[in-house]
Amino acid sequence: MKKTNILQKIHGPADVKGCSMDELKILSEEIRQALIRRVTVTGGHMGSNLGFVEATVALHYVFDSPRDKFVFDVSHQSYTHKILTGRKEGFTEPEKYYAFSGYTTPSESEHDFFKIGHTSTSISLATGLAKGRDLKGGRENIIAVIGDGSMSGGEALEGLNNAAMLNSNLIILFNDNEMSIAKNQGGMYENFRQLRETGGKAENNFFKSFGLDYYYVEEGNEVETLISAFEKVKDTKRPTVVHIHTLKGKGLDWAMQDKEAGHWAMPAAFDLAAFAKMERYETLTADFLLKKMESDPTVIAVSAATPGATGLTQEFRAKAGKQFVDVGIAEEHAVAMISGIAKNGGKPVFEVFSSFLQRTYDQLSQDLAMNKNAATILVFSSGIGGGDCTHNGMYDIALIGSIPNIIGLAPATREEYLAALEWSVEQKNHPVVIRVPKVVISDGKTIAFDDESAVKGKIVKKGSKIAILGLGDALPLAKQAAEALDETVGVNVTVVNPMCFTTLDKDLLDELKKDHDLIATVEDGILDGGFGQKIAAYYGADPVKVLNFGGAKRFNDLVPAADIAVGNHLTAELIAEDIKNHMK
Amino acid sequence: MKKTNILQKIHGPADVKGCSMDELKILSEEIRQALIRRVTVTGGHMGSNLGFVEATVALHYVFDSPRDKFVFDVSHQSYTHKILTGRKEGFTEPEKYYAFSGYTTPSESEHDFFKIGHTSTSISLATGLAKGRDLKGGRENIIAVIGDGSMSGGEALEGLNNAAMLNSNLIILFNDNEMSIAKNQGGMYENFRQLRETGGKAENNFFKSFGLDYYYVEEGNEVETLISAFEKVKDTKRPTVVHIHTLKGKGLDWAMQDKEAGHWAMPAAFDLAAFAKMERYETLTADFLLKKMESDPTVIAVSAATPGATGLTQEFRAKAGKQFVDVGIAEEHAVAMISGIAKNGGKPVFEVFSSFLQRTYDQLSQDLAMNKNAATILVFSSGIGGGDCTHNGMYDIALIGSIPNIIGLAPATREEYLAALEWSVEQKNHPVVIRVPKVVISDGKTIAFDDESAVKGKIVKKGSKIAILGLGDALPLAKQAAEALDETVGVNVTVVNPMCFTTLDKDLLDELKKDHDLIATVEDGILDGGFGQKIAAYYGADPVKVLNFGGAKRFNDLVPAADIAVGNHLTAELIAEDIKNHMK
Repeated sequence: MKKTNILQKIHGPADVKGCSMDELKILSEEIRQALIRRVTVTGGHMGSNLGFVEATVALHYVFDSPRDKFVFDVSHQSYTHKILTGRKEGFTEPEKYYAFSGYTTPSESEHDFFKIGHTSTSISLATGLAKGRDLKGGRENIIAVIGDGSMSGGEALEGLNNAAMLNSNLIILFNDNEMSIAKNQGGMYENFRQLRETGGKAENNFFKSFGLDYYYVEEGNEVETLISAFEKVKDTKRPTVVHIHTLKGKGLDWAMQDKEAGHWAMPAAFDLAAFAKMERYETLTADFLLKKMESDPTVIAVSAATPGATGLTQEFRAKAGKQFVDVGIAEEHAVAMISGIAKNGGKPVFEVFSSFLQRTYDQLSQDLAMNKNAATILVFSSGIGGGDCTHNGMYDIALIGSIPNIIGLAPATREEYLAALEWSVEQKNHPVVIRVPKVVISDGKTIAFDDESAVKGKIVKKGSKIAILGLGDALPLAKQAAEALDETVGVNVTVVNPMCFTTLDKDLLDELKKDHDLIATVEDGILDGGFGQKIAAYYGADPVKVLNFGGAKRFNDLVPAADIAVGNHLTAELIAEDIKNHMK
Repeated sequence: MKKTNILQKIHGPADVKGCSMDELKILSEEIRQALIRRVTVTGGHMGSNLGFVEATVALHYVFDSPRDKFVFDVSHQSYTHKILTGRKEGFTEPEKYYAFSGYTTPSESEHDFFKIGHTSTSISLATGLAKGRDLKGGRENIIAVIGDGSMSGGEALEGLNNAAMLNSNLIILFNDNEMSIAKNQGGMYENFRQLRETGGKAENNFFKSFGLDYYYVEEGNEVETLISAFEKVKDTKRPTVVHIHTLKGKGLDWAMQDKEAGHWAMPAAFDLAAFAKMERYETLTADFLLKKMESDPTVIAVSAATPGATGLTQEFRAKAGKQFVDVGIAEEHAVAMISGIAKNGGKPVFEVFSSFLQRTYDQLSQDLAMNKNAATILVFSSGIGGGDCTHNGMYDIALIGSIPNIIGLAPATREEYLAALEWSVEQKNHPVVIRVPKVVISDGKTIAFDDESAVKGKIVKKGSKIAILGLGDALPLAKQAAEALDETVGVNVTVVNPMCFTTLDKDLLDELKKDHDLIATVEDGILDGGFGQKIAAYYGADPVKVLNFGGAKRFNDLVPAADIAVGNHLTAELIAEDIKNHMK
C-alpha cells in the first residue's frame, strides 16, 4: 500500500465511510502530515488540530454530515473536518493554502453550520440546533465538539446546564487535551484529571452533576476505539457527554513539548529574530508591571487564558508569582474579580484582547463601572485590522463609550502609554480602559499624567481652518493627511491627539471651533457609536463641519487590511481628498 | 419577655452578637413581621428576603462585619442585613420606607461593598475581595451569598471554577430555596435536589466537582443550627461552600404557595384590577405568539428566568407546551440557542429585559449577528426610567447599534409593533431586535411590513424648517414638542417616526435636509452611541443643525423619573425651548 494513496481518494465524507480500519489509520497519519506541512507554512492553530485528527475521521465515519450536524467550539480544531468535506486542497496544495478560513464558515461548505471563532459557544448553538430539529420533528444527530479549555467559559457552562434539559439527542464530544491556550485554570480541571486517571469513574463527576449521561474514552487518538464509542452514542435520545483524552500537538515534537507555544504556530515567513528585537507594547507593559510589583505587593496582573499573547510570558509569570493570576477562559469573572481586588486595596491590571472584552459588557457596567473601582484594563489588538471577522478589534470604543464612569484612553506614543498606565494603576477613583497602540512610536518626551491631564486632548500641531483629530493609533494617519492637505490646499492644518475617547474635552472643542471650519475625526474603530460620532453630536448645532473617518458597520471576513482601509477612506490621500471636497 | 423588644435594641451587628439564642429566634420573627409589613406597602423582593432572615442573623452573629465582608448576589435578599446594619428604620418606620435602596449600596453603609442588582456576580466579586486581602496580607473572612436561581448564570459558574483556585479563605453561602424567579431550569437543579434529599451525600456533588469544600445544612431557617455551621467554617483556609436549604416566602402564606408571584410583591397601592384590564404589550405579545403557535409548530418563545414579567404567564406556558422554553438565568445561552434554533428551521422569539440583554453583547455579535440567523428578540423595560440604576433600560440602543447585521426596530404604536413582530418572525434574513414600547398607543390603522418598509422612517406630520425625529416610545414627546413649537414659533414642525435605530433611512434624511434648518432627535435612551448621534454624524458636513435629546451618560440611582426627564431636557417644553433658542 502506497503511503499517500488514501487521502488522495477522499473527496467527501462518503469516501471516509468506504475506508477500512487500516485505511482510516493511514488516512489519519496522512492528514496529520499535511496539517504539519501546511500550518508550518501558513501559521495557525497547530496543537488543537493535530490532537483531533482521529476523532474527526471517526466522526465522519460514524455520523452522516451534513444531515448530522457538527458544531466545533472556537472551530480552531476544524482543519481535518475541512479536509474531509471537500476543502482538502486548502491543506494539500500550497497555492490554495489561503483559500479557506481557519474557522468553520457556512459560506464555504454545507458541512459548516456557523461562523465561529470565540470560545465556549458550541453547546448552546448545538442545543439550539437540537431544539430546532425537535420542533420540526427531525431525527438527525447534533454533535457539539468542545475542548477542555473552552469549558471554563460561562456560556459553555450555561449551555451544559441547559443541554441537560433536552429530552432528545445531543452529543457533547469533550476533547480533553489537558490544555487551554496556556495551562488550564480552575477547580473543574482537577475533576477532569481524576476522571482521566480513573477511566471516568471518579468519585464526583462534573458532567453527571449537570445531569448529563457520560462516557469516557482514554484512547482519544485511536480511530477504531473512537468509532466504536461514537457508534454506541449515535441516535441516543439523551444529552450525552463523550469525554475523550487526546494529545495536543500529536506528531510534532516541539508542539508536544511546549503545548502553549504549539497552540498557535507562526507562519514560516515570520521573522522571529526581528520580532524578538522589536520594541513592543507587550514587553513594555510586562517590564513596567514587574518593576511596579517589586516595590508594591498589591499590584496584580490578570489574564483570561491569553497571557503569552499579551506579553505575560512564562518568565514573567514565574517572576510575578502570586502577583499574577490567569483565570482561564472566563472574561466575565475577570472583570468582576478586578473590581473586587480594587475594592479591597489591590491594584489590578487586566490584559485582554479587544475582541474578547466583548464578553464583558455587563460586567464592565454593573460590576466595575457602577462601583467606580480603580481597576485598569489594557486592551490589546484593538483596531479595524484584517483577518478573521471573529477576532476583529474594532468594536471596543463603541462598547465602552456608552458605559458611565469608565475612563477610556487611547495614547498614541510610548511615553503617553506609560504615563497613562502609571497614572491608571496609582489613581483611586476610576475604572480605566487603555487601548494599547499597535506600533511603538516614541517622541522621547518623558511625561506624567494626573487626573486632569490624563483626559485632556493635546494639540500636536496648531493651524487653522481644518483640524484633524487622530485617536490613538490613528494619530499618524491624521498627521499624514494633514501634511497632504498642507501641501495641496496650502492651509496649515491643526492636528489633535484627543487621548480620551469616553468623554469629550469640551474646552478644547470650543477653542477649535473658533478658528476652524471643518473638523475631521479619524479612529481605528467602528464609526457607529464611536468617538467621532460624539464629536459630530457635540458640534451638531454649530456651523463647523464634521467628517468622521473610521470603520463601516460590517463584519469584514478575510478582507485584506489594505482593502478595508481604502474602502473606509482610511488612507492619508483619501482623507485629504474628502476634506478638500468639503472645503469647496 | 415582650414580643417586640429585641429588634428595638438592635442598632448594629454588635447588638446581634449580644443576644442569646432565644433572643435571636425572637429577633428573626420580629424582622420577618417587619419585612412583611413593609414590603406589603412598598412592594419589593418578598420571598427571597423572608427565606433568608435567620441566615442573615446568624451571619452577623458569627462574623464581624464590616471587617468580614458579605457580598450578596443580586442583593435582593439583603433587607435583613440592612436592618441589622443601622438601616432598621427603613423597614420599621413607614415615613422612612423609601429611604434606602432595595439593593446593597456602599454609599448607604460601610457594611455594603458593592452596588449589586444583576444576578450571578457575587462569587467573582468576592473572589476579588479575597485576592485583594491576600495581596495585602489580611485575614478577614469573605462570604459570598448566592441563591440557587443565580447559580445557573455563566458569571457565577466561572466564579465557582476560579474560586476553587484560591488557596485561602472564601465562603460561598449557597441559599437553596428551590426556586429561581420562576421554576429553576437546568441539570444542576436535579443535583441540588439529590443533595437536599441525601443531606449532602449524593453520588455526584456539583460543588465538589468544581473542587470546592462542601457542607450541607438542612435547617436553613433555624438560627442556632446556622450559627454552629458558620462557626465551623469561619476562618477556613479553603474555598468552601455551605449549602443551606431555606423556605422562600417563609411566614407569608400566599408567597409560600405561589413562589413565583411571591418573588416580587407589588406595592399595596398598586391597582391590580385596573392593571388586569389595561391593554399591555406583554399580553398582546403572548396572544400573538399563541395564535402563531397554533398554526406553526416551529414558533418557539424563549425566556431567561423572567417569563411572568414579560407576559409569558403560567397559563401561556401551559398552552405553549414544547413551544416555550425557559433557560433560567442564562441570557448568553439564550441568545446562542435562538441562533441555533433559527439555523435549524425554527422561529424563536426571545423576550428579555433591556438591562439583562447587556449580558449578551458578544453572543449577539458572534453567535447571532455574524451568522445572520433570523431570530427575534423583544426587549422589554427599555428606556431611561427612574428606579434603581442596576435595572436601567437606557443602554440597549447603543449596545445593539454597533453590531453589524442586526435590525433594531422601535415601533411607536400597537399596530406598528404587531406588524414588526409579524414581519420579524416570518422573515428569513436578519436577526431582529424590537424595542417593545411601554404604553399601548393605537391609531387603528392596520399595517403590514415587508423587508423594505419595516426599516423605513415614517413622516407623521409634514412641515418645514424644523423636524423632530421621535424614536419609538419618544414619538409622543416629539409630537408634543412639535405642537408647542407650532404654537409659539408659528412654524409647521415636521414629525418623523424613524422606526429603525440601527441603520439610517438615508433617502428620508436627504429629503428632510432640503427644506429643514434644524433636525432634532428624541430617544428614550443614552445619548452616547445612540440613535441621535448617528443622525448628527450623517449631517456632519451639512448646514442643517442637529440637536440630540436623550439620556446623559450617568448611572441614575433612585432619581425620580420626572427629575431625570427635566435634567435631560426630555419634556415637550424644554425640547421646544432648546430648539427655539437654536433657531435664532
